[in-house]
Amino acid sequence: MVLQTNTKEDAMSKKERTAIEPTRAENYAEWYQQVIRAADLAENSEVRGCMVIKPWGYAIWENIQRVLDEMFRETGHRNAYFPIFIPKSYFEKEAEHVEGFAKECAVVTHSRLEADGNGGLKPAGELTEPYIVRPTSETIIGASFAKWVNSYRDLPLLINQWANIVRWEMRTRLFLRTTEFLWQEGHTVHESSDEAMDETLKMLDVYARFAQDYLAIPVIKGEKTEGEKFPGAVNTYCIEAMMQDRKALQSGTSHFLGQNFAKAFDVQFTNQEGKLDYVWATSWGVTTRLIGALIMAHADNKGLVLPPRLAPIQVVIIPIYKGNSQLDTISEIALDLRSKLEKAGISVKYDNRDTQKPGYKFAEYELKGVPVRLAIGPRDAEEGTVEVARRDALTKETVSRDNIIERVQTLLDEIQKNIYTKAVKFRDENTYRADTWEEFTDIIENRGGFVMAHYDGTPETEEKIKDLTKATVRAIPLNSPGEEGKCILTGKPSERRVLFARAY
Amino acid sequence: MVLQTNTKEDAMSKKERTAIEPTRAENYAEWYQQVIRAADLAENSEVRGCMVIKPWGYAIWENIQRVLDEMFRETGHRNAYFPIFIPKSYFEKEAEHVEGFAKECAVVTHSRLEADGNGGLKPAGELTEPYIVRPTSETIIGASFAKWVNSYRDLPLLINQWANIVRWEMRTRLFLRTTEFLWQEGHTVHESSDEAMDETLKMLDVYARFAQDYLAIPVIKGEKTEGEKFPGAVNTYCIEAMMQDRKALQSGTSHFLGQNFAKAFDVQFTNQEGKLDYVWATSWGVTTRLIGALIMAHADNKGLVLPPRLAPIQVVIIPIYKGNSQLDTISEIALDLRSKLEKAGISVKYDNRDTQKPGYKFAEYELKGVPVRLAIGPRDAEEGTVEVARRDALTKETVSRDNIIERVQTLLDEIQKNIYTKAVKFRDENTYRADTWEEFTDIIENRGGFVMAHYDGTPETEEKIKDLTKATVRAIPLNSPGEEGKCILTGKPSERRVLFARAY
Repeated sequence: MVLQTNTKEDAMSKKERTAIEPTRAENYAEWYQQVIRAADLAENSEVRGCMVIKPWGYAIWENIQRVLDEMFRETGHRNAYFPIFIPKSYFEKEAEHVEGFAKECAVVTHSRLEADGNGGLKPAGELTEPYIVRPTSETIIGASFAKWVNSYRDLPLLINQWANIVRWEMRTRLFLRTTEFLWQEGHTVHESSDEAMDETLKMLDVYARFAQDYLAIPVIKGEKTEGEKFPGAVNTYCIEAMMQDRKALQSGTSHFLGQNFAKAFDVQFTNQEGKLDYVWATSWGVTTRLIGALIMAHADNKGLVLPPRLAPIQVVIIPIYKGNSQLDTISEIALDLRSKLEKAGISVKYDNRDTQKPGYKFAEYELKGVPVRLAIGPRDAEEGTVEVARRDALTKETVSRDNIIERVQTLLDEIQKNIYTKAVKFRDENTYRADTWEEFTDIIENRGGFVMAHYDGTPETEEKIKDLTKATVRAIPLNSPGEEGKCILTGKPSERRVLFARAY
Repeated sequence: MVLQTNTKEDAMSKKERTAIEPTRAENYAEWYQQVIRAADLAENSEVRGCMVIKPWGYAIWENIQRVLDEMFRETGHRNAYFPIFIPKSYFEKEAEHVEGFAKECAVVTHSRLEADGNGGLKPAGELTEPYIVRPTSETIIGASFAKWVNSYRDLPLLINQWANIVRWEMRTRLFLRTTEFLWQEGHTVHESSDEAMDETLKMLDVYARFAQDYLAIPVIKGEKTEGEKFPGAVNTYCIEAMMQDRKALQSGTSHFLGQNFAKAFDVQFTNQEGKLDYVWATSWGVTTRLIGALIMAHADNKGLVLPPRLAPIQVVIIPIYKGNSQLDTISEIALDLRSKLEKAGISVKYDNRDTQKPGYKFAEYELKGVPVRLAIGPRDAEEGTVEVARRDALTKETVSRDNIIERVQTLLDEIQKNIYTKAVKFRDENTYRADTWEEFTDIIENRGGFVMAHYDGTPETEEKIKDLTKATVRAIPLNSPGEEGKCILTGKPSERRVLFARAY
């Protein structure tokens, strides 16, 4: 960031930085890009569809990783690392799987570059078998598990991997859909179908809990329809969240793989009866898309709004001063405050840069979504007070230094709760039941949101509804009660409502 | 791990697991592979030169990451993430760089697979410009820095990336040299040459400190010769460690890049005088090779020996019991012990598996290098004692439960110190000065180790010495005093001794 020394330019630049243009209401898609730019989270690279995750964006991802990793450990999983390259022959072993990913994968065909005779370089050293850059690792991990598993005593085997993934996406958007992205992928194998299904749903619960307690985003847990499930899975479960434009974002998936990959990679074990059997597998993952979810669920026209539990900086302290003597007095107070807050487990930054004015800093941390801002001026120093501003509500209060630690602690909890409650309210206000095609299309076209409706359960009807309205079955909610009804399109009988929405 | 219920098989399997065969003295290279296998650290995959890092190996890497990441933060660096793919045209921009890496890189040429007409798949969707899977990221990060840096106020820019890297190695060995490996790469840009050089040496110091204080491996800091420096760097600095076969292992490098990449990628800034100038850059990295260093520096014929400060489990508690009533009594004591040790910041595992006998467990944790083993039998339970065994010295003592926490704490410090001291002693005993060609070749051929010797400083002589003895200049040590002497090969004058050794 360049300091503008010219006063007029400074004023203009400050104005530019205090608000996102266009606003969320004016142009949601463009607003999303501008929040990312203004909060300095990420940018497009010149490599097709690949993003650069900048330090502030990456710090959020590291916090997501830290929390999830702990949740995975608590549920008995261990981390490992598998090759980035998948031999084409592995890839071909599971028919649905290769069908699902062959259309969008990076293929490595050569092992070096050599002079092309025109002063440039051309690929050389052609491989006898091409490698695929992993679009997901069921196949390469299946090949390892086949070596690791012999007996029921080796089961369950509960592995997680943090890795980069490549899928050659045609239309990309920062965080939401990129050619390369970062993720975690859990891969587990079990003795029985029941145990594998329990694991599948347990990890779906972990994701739902993470979304609600950390991302502050309410989600609906459900099962995907046949057409939307993971290539190679028997069942795919998902968590679906509503963004502020009322569209759905699939935020995590957990797959029950049955014995499909076990059969493709010959992962057999001797069971308790002494007989050979194939293992039952699961896989589950969340990606850097979660950062996109954070932005689209909470950000406003002033920039990002971070849930305190995932904010790389929870509290920023900004001194307001003229001259070094005032700064010295304020710094002493600020550093004492910082150390006390840190002792309370709060992540704090004291921004005493003298190259930027307070107004510029206020705007910067607002754009970046830092939950709490403390400002200390000469008068605060004298009177023993601190100005406390909260990012979510954009309100301010003056707090005595004697109570500031407790106040900040409560405030962080309040903000976490508040943005979650707001998101729940927004989602509930935009969730409808539709019983006729007219109602359904009216909601989808004119209001947006989630629509609970009956359909006849066939892929054909699902496809037709999608063609007509761009809405898809996001999930068959796990907790949706049985209810007799009629398909909104065909009028055929249906046994339960499912969740329809337009989606990312 | 499969429980052998047949007693004879159990005894055999236990014998197999208590010692590494061949021994370190018999066949060092094979002993190394067997330690990795026995400690369950990693294995080769069917993907050429790519390894699978198993949970125990990966947990060591995570500890290395945790410590280094904190050291990088303390020195002002922030993490970010850049694309895995590098356009061929980027790669071609710095002549020495491309020359250095073109011979061993994975080239992505296609973006999908399609039916080949024989029931299989073939690469399709040929890219207009091939991508290289990053062998290092100076070029792709240079392209970003060109956008991020405008003025001296944006400098220094101090970035680190944790990532996977691909170099198409011809001969690979687990951890030491693999086609894909994990690493961190620091990339920084500065206003002045001096500041960049300071950074280069500061990060070399961080690596040396990490090696000594955490890996418990003494290292020599030095500069690489022209022939051994990083392709595109002005100077390369390194830390060199001695393995137990007396060969050198380069364990980390820090490069002063001058303005080479800045010029290739047009990374310019307005300096304090208001003039445009190119930035001065550094880059520095360490890799999963450090796990190889750990093994080769400390392991013995009983398996891995982990320095306590990097051990995923520092203390294992094993109950010795017959029947559930004994186990209950011992478990109560063990769980109390575990909770007290954990409160003291120690990482503890209580292994109460009833599928394995104590002897099997003892051997297993020895192979895995867990620093301290506590065993509690019925008599210990009665008498208030614990049997304490240390992995490094393979000695045992009986300690009263009243003193156990303090004893374990001291012991972990002692072990950390002891394996470091042992490594220093070994290195010093195997470091020589040679003044003649005869002395030099005698040491290199018959004894091995580090040899401090004079040479005339020319690439030709360096190459000839390498051809004749397989020894190379590992480093021009930073602290080596000036000393007039004569080249061991040509007799030409020399101003300082350099470090020669055979190396990995």
